[in-house]
Amino acid sequence: MSDDLKRDALEYHSLPRPGKLSIEITTPAETSRHLSLAYSPGVAEPVRAIAEDPENAFKYTMKGNLVAVISNGTAILGLGNLGSLASKPVMEGKALLFKRFANVDSIDIEIDSEDVDDIVKTVSLIAESFGGINLEDIKAPECFEVERRLIETCKVPIFHDDQHGTAIVTVAGMLNALEVQGKSIKDAKLVCLGAGAAAISCSRLLVSAGMPKDNILMIDRKGVIHGGRDDLNKYKAEFANQVTSARTLDDAIDGADIFLGLSGPDMLSADQLKKMAPNPIVFACANPDPEIRPELALATRDDLVMATGRSDYPNQVNNVLGFPFIFRGALDVRATAINEEMKLAAAFAIKELAKEEVLPEVVAAYGGEQWTFGRNYIIPKPMDARLLNRVAGAVARAAVETGVARVPLPEQYKA
Amino acid sequence: MSDDLKRDALEYHSLPRPGKLSIEITTPAETSRHLSLAYSPGVAEPVRAIAEDPENAFKYTMKGNLVAVISNGTAILGLGNLGSLASKPVMEGKALLFKRFANVDSIDIEIDSEDVDDIVKTVSLIAESFGGINLEDIKAPECFEVERRLIETCKVPIFHDDQHGTAIVTVAGMLNALEVQGKSIKDAKLVCLGAGAAAISCSRLLVSAGMPKDNILMIDRKGVIHGGRDDLNKYKAEFANQVTSARTLDDAIDGADIFLGLSGPDMLSADQLKKMAPNPIVFACANPDPEIRPELALATRDDLVMATGRSDYPNQVNNVLGFPFIFRGALDVRATAINEEMKLAAAFAIKELAKEEVLPEVVAAYGGEQWTFGRNYIIPKPMDARLLNRVAGAVARAAVETGVARVPLPEQYKA
Repeated sequence: MSDDLKRDALEYHSLPRPGKLSIEITTPAETSRHLSLAYSPGVAEPVRAIAEDPENAFKYTMKGNLVAVISNGTAILGLGNLGSLASKPVMEGKALLFKRFANVDSIDIEIDSEDVDDIVKTVSLIAESFGGINLEDIKAPECFEVERRLIETCKVPIFHDDQHGTAIVTVAGMLNALEVQGKSIKDAKLVCLGAGAAAISCSRLLVSAGMPKDNILMIDRKGVIHGGRDDLNKYKAEFANQVTSARTLDDAIDGADIFLGLSGPDMLSADQLKKMAPNPIVFACANPDPEIRPELALATRDDLVMATGRSDYPNQVNNVLGFPFIFRGALDVRATAINEEMKLAAAFAIKELAKEEVLPEVVAAYGGEQWTFGRNYIIPKPMDARLLNRVAGAVARAAVETGVARVPLPEQYKA
Repeated sequence: MSDDLKRDALEYHSLPRPGKLSIEITTPAETSRHLSLAYSPGVAEPVRAIAEDPENAFKYTMKGNLVAVISNGTAILGLGNLGSLASKPVMEGKALLFKRFANVDSIDIEIDSEDVDDIVKTVSLIAESFGGINLEDIKAPECFEVERRLIETCKVPIFHDDQHGTAIVTVAGMLNALEVQGKSIKDAKLVCLGAGAAAISCSRLLVSAGMPKDNILMIDRKGVIHGGRDDLNKYKAEFANQVTSARTLDDAIDGADIFLGLSGPDMLSADQLKKMAPNPIVFACANPDPEIRPELALATRDDLVMATGRSDYPNQVNNVLGFPFIFRGALDVRATAINEEMKLAAAFAIKELAKEEVLPEVVAAYGGEQWTFGRNYIIPKPMDARLLNRVAGAVARAAVETGVARVPLPEQYKA
């Protein structure tokens, strides 16, 4: 990060006042009549209505548009475990993105514990205050159990964005990359470098999208995850490849169609890239420094389609293309969960949008650069206002179709 | 409550959208540069700064102006235990009042448990996200232990408003009532009908303000709380009177100077009121129906000073005179607690304001009625804009003087 950016970021977080959010009143609150409606004695009426039927909380409180962004700070961005309080600027930032992109009210809550039981208990006791829970920056493998147990316990959608948001946007881009390269998801061979929360979740969603599990080689710090290893947690074991003889990245990359990097800087060499199959796909998503620099990769292979996590290169895999709209759709049908079908529906909606003409205002927002679907444009831009209705609508429809919606599809999402 | 008020209250809570609050962005969030400061990669800078020094959370996040309003819904207004979700409109209302009166950002969190351990654990794990915690509508006696244990555990102020907010405003009004009636707090005999959270806390603060404990007769459902009873929890036992032979309200009220009602409707009869000492004081705070109707009370005794919890009679004991400003003062000096001295300072500041000329805009806001300090004006009006600096300033100064402030007194509070 440049010194300029560092200085600007600190200033941005302290002006006009500390932080990035405020809580505002949406109803008139000037006269004593107003206050007698907002609080005692008038407030007793919505209280009674909710006590009679909990669904009335969606009518008389902000619950239905409110998402809690919850972290314990054990895996903050690429910075690691810096404690719950230090994660607060990131969580406020996430809440800001929820509001900015999908008009979802969102508040961050940091939990000062690394204990799975503590986190599950705390979130499950407060979950009903919200329309949904976005888990964030909780390290693996605890994040898997936290999420699984909360999904079992809570009646509101639980969504760990580091897993599923990343997976949804990655799969969207990957499907388009396969199309550009003329490859099929049923045949393509994938090397996934990294075996954390995002890697597991991306691999799961790719399998849901049609990739045979045998075509995936996942690699952790000790090498390829295969059936002969006895040092795997159950999440990695899910991707232990039973057929491969590859043991290292060097082995695995030989003839691979796709490299998916969710690891760290400069892990993929030019020589390794050279060994990939014709028309390869490289998603080098380590941030801020990708597994291979785009300049080096594109100089090494001119038949490459490449994506990164960075906004200053083409094809940014950016979670903001997903989570605001996914929750928007889930909230709009009062979904009780965000299931696999809803995630895939989001991925497909994002994928499809990249094939449409880029809006003039989006072109303008990015300095006039022109894009059309292809090598340098497989993922839409966050500023594309069509994302809201397309992705939220796809998610809401999938919720209705899979029976997790509790109200009918709103008019704006009917095709 | 009239049918009109009921209908208006439900409409108020559903328009322009469900609930009364929204979460808004305070920083620019239009361009991709903005987003790179608000979120990745720029947000890493404030994260690092807070990891180095937790105090930086006050510089770079909204923590320093953020209060959580927390309830489990076991004692919602006068409605009883209706569950945590049903308390949400009240808690949003409280948050609305925080914002409206003292520009404190506030969010409600409902905890779905009646278990003291659960509540303490949950709040203590999330407390650091906030600048302060306002507990609300948690039933006695659990509320006492919840508060005590949280005060021991947490580094941010913990304040149960049903106890202390009520006590502060009651004591403010009571001190003025004593002055109007020419009585001294050292000699006045008080009957407190009710032995719940508010009653215990009011009695404690009256003792802090100078009332001898022997002059207090507290009455629960079984009669006067005295040293001979063996059915008292430790909070009631604190006010077991060791000298009285009174056993009923009828006994206790005979010759009493003050009746403080924190119980239910019509508990004090005209005959009982007749038995009180000359120039009596009646605070009939049960809401919405007081322990004795003001019309009846004033027809029975023309030497009476009376207060209620209602806005449609003179002398409303209204917590909104306290909590927004108390937290404002505590937040402004980053206080680690709201201690007894801060509470008394708030009570004295409210008391003193009632002796000043009423502002023209306050007169106008209440339909042109004129007040001067005396029988019908012992408590200032919530719309009095001077409350903010007076009460917050008094609280902040008391925090500095008692060593619980972590930053110096802000300029606006220097006399």
